[in-house]
Amino acid sequence: MAAYVNTRPELDAELRTLPARCYTDPEHFRRELEAIYYDMWLAAGRTEQIPAAGSYFLRQVGSASVIILRDERGDVAAFHNVCRHRGTLLCQQAQGRLAGRIQCAYHAWTYGLDGALLAAPHMEKVRGFREADFPLQRVATAVWDDHIFINLSPNPLPFEQHLAGLDRKFRPWRMEELKLVERKVYALKANWKLVIQNYSECLHCPNAHPLLSKKSHYLSGENEPPQPTYLGGRMELREGVATLSVDGQSNRSCLAGLSSEDRRRVYYYAILPNLLLNLHPDYMLSFTLWPLAADRTEVVCEWHFHPDEIAKPDFDPSGAIELWDVTNREDWALSDLAQAGIASRGYQPGPYSNREELLHALDQWVIERLETRRGAWSAAQVAGA
Amino acid sequence: MAAYVNTRPELDAELRTLPARCYTDPEHFRRELEAIYYDMWLAAGRTEQIPAAGSYFLRQVGSASVIILRDERGDVAAFHNVCRHRGTLLCQQAQGRLAGRIQCAYHAWTYGLDGALLAAPHMEKVRGFREADFPLQRVATAVWDDHIFINLSPNPLPFEQHLAGLDRKFRPWRMEELKLVERKVYALKANWKLVIQNYSECLHCPNAHPLLSKKSHYLSGENEPPQPTYLGGRMELREGVATLSVDGQSNRSCLAGLSSEDRRRVYYYAILPNLLLNLHPDYMLSFTLWPLAADRTEVVCEWHFHPDEIAKPDFDPSGAIELWDVTNREDWALSDLAQAGIASRGYQPGPYSNREELLHALDQWVIERLETRRGAWSAAQVAGA
Amino acid sequence: MAAYVNTRPELDAELRTLPARCYTDPEHFRRELEAIYYDMWLAAGRTEQIPAAGSYFLRQVGSASVIILRDERGDVAAFHNVCRHRGTLLCQQAQGRLAGRIQCAYHAWTYGLDGALLAAPHMEKVRGFREADFPLQRVATAVWDDHIFINLSPNPLPFEQHLAGLDRKFRPWRMEELKLVERKVYALKANWKLVIQNYSECLHCPNAHPLLSKKSHYLSGENEPPQPTYLGGRMELREGVATLSVDGQSNRSCLAGLSSEDRRRVYYYAILPNLLLNLHPDYMLSFTLWPLAADRTEVVCEWHFHPDEIAKPDFDPSGAIELWDVTNREDWALSDLAQAGIASRGYQPGPYSNREELLHALDQWVIERLETRRGAWSAAQVAGA
Repeated sequence: MAAYVNTRPELDAELRTLPARCYTDPEHFRRELEAIYYDMWLAAGRTEQIPAAGSYFLRQVGSASVIILRDERGDVAAFHNVCRHRGTLLCQQAQGRLAGRIQCAYHAWTYGLDGALLAAPHMEKVRGFREADFPLQRVATAVWDDHIFINLSPNPLPFEQHLAGLDRKFRPWRMEELKLVERKVYALKANWKLVIQNYSECLHCPNAHPLLSKKSHYLSGENEPPQPTYLGGRMELREGVATLSVDGQSNRSCLAGLSSEDRRRVYYYAILPNLLLNLHPDYMLSFTLWPLAADRTEVVCEWHFHPDEIAKPDFDPSGAIELWDVTNREDWALSDLAQAGIASRGYQPGPYSNREELLHALDQWVIERLETRRGAWSAAQVAGA
Repeated sequence: MAAYVNTRPELDAELRTLPARCYTDPEHFRRELEAIYYDMWLAAGRTEQIPAAGSYFLRQVGSASVIILRDERGDVAAFHNVCRHRGTLLCQQAQGRLAGRIQCAYHAWTYGLDGALLAAPHMEKVRGFREADFPLQRVATAVWDDHIFINLSPNPLPFEQHLAGLDRKFRPWRMEELKLVERKVYALKANWKLVIQNYSECLHCPNAHPLLSKKSHYLSGENEPPQPTYLGGRMELREGVATLSVDGQSNRSCLAGLSSEDRRRVYYYAILPNLLLNLHPDYMLSFTLWPLAADRTEVVCEWHFHPDEIAKPDFDPSGAIELWDVTNREDWALSDLAQAGIASRGYQPGPYSNREELLHALDQWVIERLETRRGAWSAAQVAGA
Repeated sequence: MAAYVNTRPELDAELRTLPARCYTDPEHFRRELEAIYYDMWLAAGRTEQIPAAGSYFLRQVGSASVIILRDERGDVAAFHNVCRHRGTLLCQQAQGRLAGRIQCAYHAWTYGLDGALLAAPHMEKVRGFREADFPLQRVATAVWDDHIFINLSPNPLPFEQHLAGLDRKFRPWRMEELKLVERKVYALKANWKLVIQNYSECLHCPNAHPLLSKKSHYLSGENEPPQPTYLGGRMELREGVATLSVDGQSNRSCLAGLSSEDRRRVYYYAILPNLLLNLHPDYMLSFTLWPLAADRTEVVCEWHFHPDEIAKPDFDPSGAIELWDVTNREDWALSDLAQAGIASRGYQPGPYSNREELLHALDQWVIERLETRRGAWSAAQVAGA
C-alpha cells in the first residue's frame, strides 16, 4: 500500500463539475454534436467488418447516417447514406455487401463505390444537369491498426495530429492482428460525457467493482497529463493476476511484442470523443460511444483476441468477457444514477478529488471545444504536442 | 414505346427540392397547419357515413376535434367538438348517432344539432349571460358528389373556387352513386408533403411497383399544368388490361357515364392539401391525408364501387383492393425512407426531373401559402382560373 | 329543495376560464412549477410512513427528488436526494430504512441523517475543501396533525401563515390519530389545475356521480370565501345517510371530538396547491397532486380511519373506499376530457356559473402567483388573514 500514496498535484476546491444544463439541455447537446461529434475523428469500426469490395456497414452519428465500405481498390471509404436526388436513405440494412454499386430504391439513381453518380434516369431534359455535380457526399476516413475512423467535417484535422503519437506508443500491441470475438451493445440513460468521466477515474472501483478490484488495485498506476485529443493512464495487475478475467488467470500467451512491464499493466485510453481503448497483456477491449440525446448514449463494447489464440482448441474468452460485462453493468448503473441526480433540481456543481484530474480536464476540453470549435486552441495545443 | 417520348417542358437543374427543415421542423409544421390545414377545404368523409339526422363522425385536424353530423333538416353540418362552458370535449366516440342534441358529460350544457345552446344549467345568476352568445363554433362544410369537405377558416375560400371546375370534369363518374366497400388506415413515418410528392410522379413505378407497372406504363398519360388548388394527371391502362386489379381484369361494368377514352384511363388528382382521388373505369379510390407531426401522417384509403355491382352475387373487389394495398405499402415504405434521408445530416436539396414538374409546383405552392396565407396570391390565381 | 336556493353572489358573464396555454404550454407549466410547486408548502405524506430513525420515503416534485426521513432525534427532515460530489442520486428505492447514514453508491461520500457530510474519501489533497461546506441541501419541513409538508423554497412562507387557521378549524378531527388503510394512485391525462377545479364545484355531481349524489345533495352546504392558501367548503349528508359509503351506512363510531353538526357534514378543502382534504364524520380522505407535465398529473388518494375502529373484528372500510374510487374515476375521466377539449383548436374561454366562484378564484390565484411569485400580494393577503 505504501506504493499507492497520492502523489498527484493538488486541485482546488473551487474547481467544480459542470452545470446541469451541460448534461440535460437538448440545445447544449446539439452544440456538442456540432463542435465535437460532427467535427472530430470518430472510431467507427474495424476493417475486418468489410473484408471485400462492396462490403459495408452503417453508422449513425447524431442525425447523420454514414455508409462505411470497402471500395473497388480495396480502400476504406465513407459516404453520407443519402441520395442526391430527393434525399432518400440509400442503404437500409445495418451491414451487407453491395454488388459494385449503390442504387436508390426510389428512382434508381445509381452510384459507384467511389461515390460517383453513374446513372440518373430521366434527367436528360434538365438544363445544366451533370452527373458529375451529384456524387455521394464523402465522409473522411482514416485507418489506424485496423481501427476505422470517420470524420464528418469538411475540413478535418490531419489524422496524425488526432493520434498525437498514440500510434507509436501502442505499436507493440499490433492491434491490426487482433480479431473480434464478442460484441455487446449497451443502452445508457446517461450523457456521453458521464461515460468518459466514469472511465477516467478508479476511485469508485472499491465500492462499485468488487470483482475488478480483486485483480487490479484502484490506486495503482499512473495517468498521463491530459492531452488535446486523449486522456489516458494505466493500472497494474495485482500480484498473481495474469490478466483481467473472472479468475485473473489466462491460458493465452501475452501479445508478442510487449515489454515485461506492459505484461503487468492495463492501459486505459479515452481517445476523444468516442473511443475508450483498454489494452491488456493478451487482449484488446474497445468501447465506442454514440450519443443519442442529452441523456441517452449507446455504448458498443468489443473484445478482440489474437488469431493464434482463437485457433487453439482450448481458447476460452469467457472469463475476460464476463469480467468486463459485469464491470460495465456496474458502471452504466452508476452513470445512469449520475444523470438522474444531475437532472434533479437539487444538483449543484461539486468539487473534484485531485485523483479526478482527468475529469476536470474533460470538462475544460468540452467548454473550449464549444467556444472555439476546433480553432486556435486545439491548433496551438496540437502544434505543441 | 415511341408513344412515351418525353415531351414535357425542360426544367432547370438549379430548381431544387425544399430544405430539410420543411420536413422536420416542428415549428415549420405548425406554420403549415395554420396556413394550409386550418385554412383550406379538407376532404373529411362521405355523406353515406351520416345517413340520418343525428348521425355523426369525428375528424381530428391538427389539434382541432371536429364533429361532422347530419342535422334535423338533413343537411351536413360541422362544429368544433368543444363545450362553450369549460372547454370539455363533447363527443368521445369516433362515430355514432346523437339523439337530437349534444350534451356535455360534465355539466350538461346541451346543444341542438344546429349548434344552438339549448340549456346551460345554473347560469341564471350570471350577469349578462345569454345562451345565444354560446353556440357551438361552426366549421364550414361543403358537399361535392357526396364527398364531405370541411374548412376551419372563419373566412373560407368559396368552395367552387376550390373545386376550380373539377366538378364538371369528373361529373361523368357520378361519384355520389358509389358506395364504400373497404377502408384501410396507414400510419406513415413521413411528412404529408412526401405523400403527395410520391403520388405526383410515376418515375419510381418500374422500380417500386412491379405489379402496378404490368397494368399501366409509367410513362403513359399526361399531367395537367399545376393549378392553385390541385395537381392532376392521368395514365393509360396497358392493352388487354381492363382496370387496376391484381390480374388486370374485372367482371364489373364500367361506370355508366364514361367516354370510351376514359374507360382506358386512370385519373390521379391531388386536390390540395389532403385528398388524393384515383378514378378508375369501374371504381373510385380515395386517400385522405391527416398530418400528425412533421414526420408522421395518417392516410385513410377507401375503395368505392357502384351499388349495382356490389349487389351482384359474383361481386369481388379483392383484386382492386389488393393491387392498391400492395402499391400503397410500397409507396409508404419509400416515403418513410425519404423522410429518414431528408432528416439526415447528409441531405442537400437535389434537382428534379422534368417529369417531376408537379413536385416542384407543390413545393412552390407550399412556400407561397406560408408567405401569403390565402391572400393576394391565391385570390389572383383563382380569379384567373 | 327549498333549502337549496342559489344565494351566492352573482358573477359576471365576462369572467372567463383561462386561456388554453395555461393548460397546454410546457413553458407555462415550467413557470407554474417555479412559482407554485417549488415555492409553496406541499403535502408529501404522513409521519406514520417513517416510524423510526432512518426510515425514509422519496417524493418527486417536478425535477426535484427529495428524501423525507426521520432523523436521530426523532424529527422529520428532508433533503435533496443528490450527492454534493458529482451529483449522483443517493437513494434509489421509493422507501426504506437507512442505517444511520446516507452513502453515495458512486464514491462513498457519506452523510448523516442530519445531512452533514461525514466522509468524503480522497479529498485530502484538495485545497480549501472542508466537509462542512458540503452538507446535503435541506428542504424545509413542517408537520400538521401528522401530515408532513415540504417546501423547496430557500425562504419558505412561515407554515402557520400557510395553514391560516385551518389547524384550529380541523382540530376536532384529531387527524394525527388516524391511520392509513388504503392508498390508490391514479394517472391523469390532465393539468393539475383541472383536478382542483373539478374538486371545487359539485354542479357536475348529478350528471357525473349518481352514487355520490344519492348520499349528499349537490346544492347542499356552503363554501368559505376564497383564501390566499386554500379553497374550501362543506356539504350535507342526506337524511338517513351516516357517511359517504356505497350504502350510506357505517358501523364505525364518529370521530370523538366532532360536534353534532359536523357529524352530518363532509368538509372539502383544497389546501393549495397539492392537498385535497375530505373530512367525513368517521374517516379522512386525502388527495395529493403531483404534476408531471402540462397535461399529466399523478394523484395519490388515501383513506385513513381511527385505530379503535380498525381494531374491531367487523371493521370494513370497503364501502367508503369503493364510493370514492368510483367517484374518483368518474372525476378523472371528466378531467381528461376537459384537458382534451381545452387542447383542441376549438377551445375558447367560457363563462362560469356563480356556483363556480372557487374556480374563478383559483384562476386568479394562479395568475397572481405567476406575476408576483410569493411577493407583495400574498404577503399582504396573509398579513390581513
